[in-house]
Amino acid sequence: MKRVLAFGEVMMRLGVPDHKLLQQTSQLDYLFSGTGVNILSGLSHMGHETFIITALPDNRVGNVATGKLREMGIGTEMIQYEGDHIGIYILETGYGARPSQVTYLNRSMSSFATYDYSGKIKDFDTMFMDVEMLHICGIALIHDNTYKMALKLVDEAKIRNVKVVFDCNYRASLWGNRDPQDVSKMYRSLFENADIVFASYRDFALHAPDIVKDCDEEEAMFRVQEAFKIEYLCHTNRNLETQEIEGCLYVNQKKYTSDSYKLEILDRVGGGDGFALGILHGILENYDIETCVEFGIGAAVLAHTTYGDPFVNDTKSVFNVINKYKLDLIR
Amino acid sequence: MKRVLAFGEVMMRLGVPDHKLLQQTSQLDYLFSGTGVNILSGLSHMGHETFIITALPDNRVGNVATGKLREMGIGTEMIQYEGDHIGIYILETGYGARPSQVTYLNRSMSSFATYDYSGKIKDFDTMFMDVEMLHICGIALIHDNTYKMALKLVDEAKIRNVKVVFDCNYRASLWGNRDPQDVSKMYRSLFENADIVFASYRDFALHAPDIVKDCDEEEAMFRVQEAFKIEYLCHTNRNLETQEIEGCLYVNQKKYTSDSYKLEILDRVGGGDGFALGILHGILENYDIETCVEFGIGAAVLAHTTYGDPFVNDTKSVFNVINKYKLDLIR
Amino acid sequence: MKRVLAFGEVMMRLGVPDHKLLQQTSQLDYLFSGTGVNILSGLSHMGHETFIITALPDNRVGNVATGKLREMGIGTEMIQYEGDHIGIYILETGYGARPSQVTYLNRSMSSFATYDYSGKIKDFDTMFMDVEMLHICGIALIHDNTYKMALKLVDEAKIRNVKVVFDCNYRASLWGNRDPQDVSKMYRSLFENADIVFASYRDFALHAPDIVKDCDEEEAMFRVQEAFKIEYLCHTNRNLETQEIEGCLYVNQKKYTSDSYKLEILDRVGGGDGFALGILHGILENYDIETCVEFGIGAAVLAHTTYGDPFVNDTKSVFNVINKYKLDLIR
Amino acid sequence: MKRVLAFGEVMMRLGVPDHKLLQQTSQLDYLFSGTGVNILSGLSHMGHETFIITALPDNRVGNVATGKLREMGIGTEMIQYEGDHIGIYILETGYGARPSQVTYLNRSMSSFATYDYSGKIKDFDTMFMDVEMLHICGIALIHDNTYKMALKLVDEAKIRNVKVVFDCNYRASLWGNRDPQDVSKMYRSLFENADIVFASYRDFALHAPDIVKDCDEEEAMFRVQEAFKIEYLCHTNRNLETQEIEGCLYVNQKKYTSDSYKLEILDRVGGGDGFALGILHGILENYDIETCVEFGIGAAVLAHTTYGDPFVNDTKSVFNVINKYKLDLIR
Amino acid sequence: MKRVLAFGEVMMRLGVPDHKLLQQTSQLDYLFSGTGVNILSGLSHMGHETFIITALPDNRVGNVATGKLREMGIGTEMIQYEGDHIGIYILETGYGARPSQVTYLNRSMSSFATYDYSGKIKDFDTMFMDVEMLHICGIALIHDNTYKMALKLVDEAKIRNVKVVFDCNYRASLWGNRDPQDVSKMYRSLFENADIVFASYRDFALHAPDIVKDCDEEEAMFRVQEAFKIEYLCHTNRNLETQEIEGCLYVNQKKYTSDSYKLEILDRVGGGDGFALGILHGILENYDIETCVEFGIGAAVLAHTTYGDPFVNDTKSVFNVINKYKLDLIR
Amino acid sequence: MKRVLAFGEVMMRLGVPDHKLLQQTSQLDYLFSGTGVNILSGLSHMGHETFIITALPDNRVGNVATGKLREMGIGTEMIQYEGDHIGIYILETGYGARPSQVTYLNRSMSSFATYDYSGKIKDFDTMFMDVEMLHICGIALIHDNTYKMALKLVDEAKIRNVKVVFDCNYRASLWGNRDPQDVSKMYRSLFENADIVFASYRDFALHAPDIVKDCDEEEAMFRVQEAFKIEYLCHTNRNLETQEIEGCLYVNQKKYTSDSYKLEILDRVGGGDGFALGILHGILENYDIETCVEFGIGAAVLAHTTYGDPFVNDTKSVFNVINKYKLDLIR
Repeated sequence: MKRVLAFGEVMMRLGVPDHKLLQQTSQLDYLFSGTGVNILSGLSHMGHETFIITALPDNRVGNVATGKLREMGIGTEMIQYEGDHIGIYILETGYGARPSQVTYLNRSMSSFATYDYSGKIKDFDTMFMDVEMLHICGIALIHDNTYKMALKLVDEAKIRNVKVVFDCNYRASLWGNRDPQDVSKMYRSLFENADIVFASYRDFALHAPDIVKDCDEEEAMFRVQEAFKIEYLCHTNRNLETQEIEGCLYVNQKKYTSDSYKLEILDRVGGGDGFALGILHGILENYDIETCVEFGIGAAVLAHTTYGDPFVNDTKSVFNVINKYKLDLIR
Repeated sequence: MKRVLAFGEVMMRLGVPDHKLLQQTSQLDYLFSGTGVNILSGLSHMGHETFIITALPDNRVGNVATGKLREMGIGTEMIQYEGDHIGIYILETGYGARPSQVTYLNRSMSSFATYDYSGKIKDFDTMFMDVEMLHICGIALIHDNTYKMALKLVDEAKIRNVKVVFDCNYRASLWGNRDPQDVSKMYRSLFENADIVFASYRDFALHAPDIVKDCDEEEAMFRVQEAFKIEYLCHTNRNLETQEIEGCLYVNQKKYTSDSYKLEILDRVGGGDGFALGILHGILENYDIETCVEFGIGAAVLAHTTYGDPFVNDTKSVFNVINKYKLDLIR
Repeated sequence: MKRVLAFGEVMMRLGVPDHKLLQQTSQLDYLFSGTGVNILSGLSHMGHETFIITALPDNRVGNVATGKLREMGIGTEMIQYEGDHIGIYILETGYGARPSQVTYLNRSMSSFATYDYSGKIKDFDTMFMDVEMLHICGIALIHDNTYKMALKLVDEAKIRNVKVVFDCNYRASLWGNRDPQDVSKMYRSLFENADIVFASYRDFALHAPDIVKDCDEEEAMFRVQEAFKIEYLCHTNRNLETQEIEGCLYVNQKKYTSDSYKLEILDRVGGGDGFALGILHGILENYDIETCVEFGIGAAVLAHTTYGDPFVNDTKSVFNVINKYKLDLIR
Repeated sequence: MKRVLAFGEVMMRLGVPDHKLLQQTSQLDYLFSGTGVNILSGLSHMGHETFIITALPDNRVGNVATGKLREMGIGTEMIQYEGDHIGIYILETGYGARPSQVTYLNRSMSSFATYDYSGKIKDFDTMFMDVEMLHICGIALIHDNTYKMALKLVDEAKIRNVKVVFDCNYRASLWGNRDPQDVSKMYRSLFENADIVFASYRDFALHAPDIVKDCDEEEAMFRVQEAFKIEYLCHTNRNLETQEIEGCLYVNQKKYTSDSYKLEILDRVGGGDGFALGILHGILENYDIETCVEFGIGAAVLAHTTYGDPFVNDTKSVFNVINKYKLDLIR
Repeated sequence: MKRVLAFGEVMMRLGVPDHKLLQQTSQLDYLFSGTGVNILSGLSHMGHETFIITALPDNRVGNVATGKLREMGIGTEMIQYEGDHIGIYILETGYGARPSQVTYLNRSMSSFATYDYSGKIKDFDTMFMDVEMLHICGIALIHDNTYKMALKLVDEAKIRNVKVVFDCNYRASLWGNRDPQDVSKMYRSLFENADIVFASYRDFALHAPDIVKDCDEEEAMFRVQEAFKIEYLCHTNRNLETQEIEGCLYVNQKKYTSDSYKLEILDRVGGGDGFALGILHGILENYDIETCVEFGIGAAVLAHTTYGDPFVNDTKSVFNVINKYKLDLIR
Repeated sequence: MKRVLAFGEVMMRLGVPDHKLLQQTSQLDYLFSGTGVNILSGLSHMGHETFIITALPDNRVGNVATGKLREMGIGTEMIQYEGDHIGIYILETGYGARPSQVTYLNRSMSSFATYDYSGKIKDFDTMFMDVEMLHICGIALIHDNTYKMALKLVDEAKIRNVKVVFDCNYRASLWGNRDPQDVSKMYRSLFENADIVFASYRDFALHAPDIVKDCDEEEAMFRVQEAFKIEYLCHTNRNLETQEIEGCLYVNQKKYTSDSYKLEILDRVGGGDGFALGILHGILENYDIETCVEFGIGAAVLAHTTYGDPFVNDTKSVFNVINKYKLDLIR
């Protein structure tokens, strides 16, 4: 059991049930998610002690969200409460040729985005006591307050030799019309400081074009890893035509690729976070590198078969997948 | 059949079913409401032609809301689409000694609140063609854009001899720390221009203390009616101990009071709007004053017995109540 | 345990859940009911052996209805299958001042209404073996085929000394514009042949005005009982203002009245059938007359507190009510 | 945006949720559908102005259906209200080797089937103002009243140069034991008058055997098109073994065939109507013929992936399919 | 129509809906199942008269279970009532690489397991009147009382020339740490007395290793059949990789193998019972052997596509499958 | 914030929704409860730090229960995991004259009842660090293992000056045919050692008849308090006819009685635990005695208005009740 922190947004997901469209139902399923939540939930189900650093609205929704995080096994002692809004998204789950549709409702004015962390969170010694990893999600870069807090946390982590994980999670649509140069500069500040990075070639082509130009994708990843001194550089390859997925992990200038798995998708959102937490669990448990990447992709496969964004399966379930036991009923 | 416009917010209500608390369910009922919506829905179910002037997010939620308004019989041709947010509230329905709890999620950044109406809506001749009434909700006063639009609409209505209805709907909590003087000034600008006003003594004590000081409540209402030249001044009296309700209507310096009814409450929210639309229907149909106020309170009683905020009963149902037919099964 | 037959319609009830109106839901609860079903279900839950004589559509709905009747303990061996329609009604449950609303969808073309019984059911010896009671519902009088079958069954019952029960159940709206004289004649043919009749003064004022004219209601009932030689003449009195109910039973020119109970109504439909089956159970079990009428009204009270039309409580529950044990939790 | 009319039945669909059988649930999903409804809903979602010509029961069901049609964007001004019945079907959705099962409950006595249109609908000038297309469904041929009305509407359309669309929709089981000759004669009267026909070789083999005898299917279609002077003759080919589907369109004695798509089926009913409205939209928008047939089959593919019979996707969704973007998540 | 008895446990299944995990829902679907129940339900839907011999708790659950069995068409006259517990299992339905998970809650103290049958059930003449088959499930061997009862029933059946069916259903986890020798001895006592046995090579390798050693699987089955004088020896082969299934039937030292079908799985539990009842129906109806095994596997295929453990499809549905009609919509 | 322990059973409650009977639904609501759970949940919602000492099954149900307890804010570090069963009860919620019905499914073989605590829980110093109160429920006396553990915990508490709370919770039906003398002896051992006791006159008449004989109830309570040296002796009086409730608290030979409140009951089970935790909160917070008993009965009133057994309201809600604010909507 290791101790892990994540700084990230908690969102409220309103899901339309039974593959219907929004207008076809009068009932919505709800749950709380977010990259940090999804990853900590998974690590907690795999036996680690986890804590989320975030801000929630100071009302019934913030209160209820806290209980639901606690249910997932996530420590809620570091949560701040202020304001009246939480990022919300509506999920209309697709089917076959009809894609799933996510509709965001004002993420930019959420308590997470608007909270003044720097003015209020100060005791980093307690926060980082016995911590092995700090996870930062790229969404945190979007808002001034959260970007500042992310940088501060990274600094405090590095002072204490806590591994910094950065999940790129770049979504152009959420950045509005910010100057691309500024955005890339922010991303690079994280690439430089993180020990473990989840990002694909496309991310680097966008935010570090100088480094990856004039070379193939694999070479590009090696260059990036060296340039930013990233210990573990990770991403998945997914073939939309065949629905096959594989994981890649770059360590010490060597590339490790997992087996390829065919996805069967019950719930698409949060699938990528499954890969990330699988890798992180492998690193925390000192699995050998081959097992890390295989475990990561096994967790990704499982994440796609499970309702909700937060990962709620255990290590045994993941090993069942990567050992290819093909179980269909356990009793 | 008369033609009625309302300028008001469309909100998304997320209701916790079965009298549970939010954390006790994973399913929420949703519907669209708002004072304007509730009133137009009712007038439409009573046979009038209605249109809502509002702004909705330019996404799936705005699109679905439009269909649901159309289902209620509300004309949606005047709706504007922009932005990505709609005012949301969560309703945890109480029971007995446990009150219902409404939690608002960021109403202030909704499309309705932030849309620049003045820059884009211009053809008032078409908008007001054959219109008899324009309804303005006090919530519209809160945001700069909507206050400006409300004033503009009132002006355009008055030019065309369209009756202006103003529903005070004052909620201190939504005004934040705005200067009370400014707020009262805004309210008075509406009192002065409206032909029909829904407001209680408490509202005038707050926003027109000079007029209502040193007199009893009834006298105060007569003074207010005269000072602001309000043709119909209306409010309800509700006894929380006995759950009895009655309606009052001041016309031509005369006070009309309805019978008193004991409320049985299935859905508390939207009950007040039932009274308002009942009165408005009475006025539109030229009922005599006694019938207007009785019909108003009958509609209020019925609104409390019906799921959802928007009024969806017809005139016959209201007459069944005020004729005291005590029906409990129609087949 | 006694053996009881009923000839009656099986209907499909589509209920709108949670006190909503039809347009406010996309989900309907369904169940199967009908006066005969409701009464046999109750008698079966009280330990009797029961069978329904009816016709159901020869499709999935008829098949499923059969299983549901069997679940209630009703014997289904005498059911006929033909055609493609079942009587359907939609129930929007009211609340407080808002009455429940029943909407019938084409009862007149149901398999029950259109089946040619006389041509196909012939072995009455087997049908009536060991039978003590035959129940006929007034709805059966509406259609030619069912009226003929009702008369035939009454004849066969009388030959074998089986008690005939007739539940008047007159609903003007279902008779369309049939000649009132003809209708009354049909009703009188049943009054004359039944041993036990459920009908109120209002029914006799309509169908036997010559008998009940120029006298008060109580006297009228005595006259009717004598004129038609009805052994047990039964009805309830319900005060819509106070929601109180009491039962009346006329036997041997003596009137027995039960205690008065205040109704608390969960499900209004089927309440009257509760009274009827309570009386019938009392008669079958040879309870003394006072207990019969008390048990009947106790069953009526309980029927109003229970979901669905068919009675599904047992005798102990009824005795708890009439013994006024005021239990609110049994464990 | 074009203006389109359809004459067709509105049915109430009662769906058994979660792939259960009817007896395994106590809850049914309901919605309103019908070929005309499905097609108008789709055209409305693609931006056209649509109106349905039909008759609904004059009760709560008719009232609620009207609101739901309006929600889909279908104009309801031309609906007639009379009677107490609507065509109902129960849908038990299949899975794998278990087929979906539709059970009809008495369609033949619905308000749609029994309404006397000729006696009451007379102002065809208003009805057809600015209309580009009139859609007639083959179901309308079954009942005397609706057949007469269909012919009348076709006449009025032709007078005004409105394109007539006929969707064959032949289902032997609904015709009972009517004389096949008479049926074919009715069908031919529509084939002769329609500009756009949706029908397969099998339909013509049945209703126009003289024309299609002694030739292969493709040749048959060319002959039919010529014989009846059909401008656009359309049908799909579906391979039940592979679940692949393709669309065919005959124009000017040329056959256009779309790409073949593998169906993934969420909701089988209404799939064919997707093809029809896709073609009609293409024609209304003057897409080139190749795009028309491709768009038609893309809409059909999408219709199979969407809950409910009425088409509720937009043009962009269809283009995503036929452009083979393979999206699985939009945010 | 034949008469069939089964001695077996009735369990309460609590299913987590919508492929969620237990913690992700607050609602559970429930139904009653068990090998005997599943098989009798199927035989009853295929037209046979069936009865279950079991013990249920003497409380509301036992009472409700009885009604649900009756709904399936199973005769409940032979059920005993005592105690307060029923075997319960929770089903979390898997998806893709995530297996379904069954969690048993104390089966060993259920009324079925603890009831003293020998002391109370004595009239075997009535029980076996006109009976053709007696089905015994291997679960009955686990508890002392049920094992004794199983042996007694087998004896009484053999005296009366009733065919004995034994479904091995061996689950190591339910036997705790019982001496394997004892367990095998019990199994062999059933193998020796049964006419029809459902068991695979693996079962015999465990319980009759002396018979099946040093030979291949097919030879082993022939030896077993001879050694135990089993008239029909049956099992399925399932390929977890390809999800294909086929049925095998050994009769008179000849092996019959059905076609191979690809499973599409809606509900995994009860699939094997589908095969068994299909075979039994074939034997009861004297189908030729080839048809028996084909019908058996067709029923198994269908069982996997249908919600719930008890089989509820009819013979026509099975023939649709094995005739490979590939229907996807029946109307 | 104070630290509180409770030793008690965690049960799984399966609730029938919508006031239906068990057979009328296929869906059950579930939650976890138990006297200790209910009280700790309430104290946790009022700001205290709480921990439950119990044993749960070592399977998915135990795992899920743990998460749900954590969500309520209850510390789960002291829970033991072993076995495969949890106490289950089915709740059919009554209405009006129809009482709620609880059906227990084998509580006596639950992990809680059968776990060998003494052999495995040893570090009481850590367990009791900073603890102010230990709560013992009378149900713990029923099983040998739990009775032993209860006594051990009481000893360890008293050594450390931790207040011992004993909630009598006597239910004859759960004790089977144990010798009443033995049972009373067990109860008296707790009365003697507890500082705070929840028990009524009826409990003492049963278990301490020698003390309470020949005196009225009030005198009896004073005697009991003295005899057993109980610091706080508490109970409620409830009038089933009027549904009124009041609380009584005996301290220092003085009786304090709260106001009387009329109950409105949404969920009957857990109501009594509301009173207990209200009193305990008052004592922990050093409220004056009058406030303690008023707060206790206020919490009881609120508990009856809230879904589920565990108390989930906060102190402000309770003060709203006892201050008689008569709120019906908070926004």
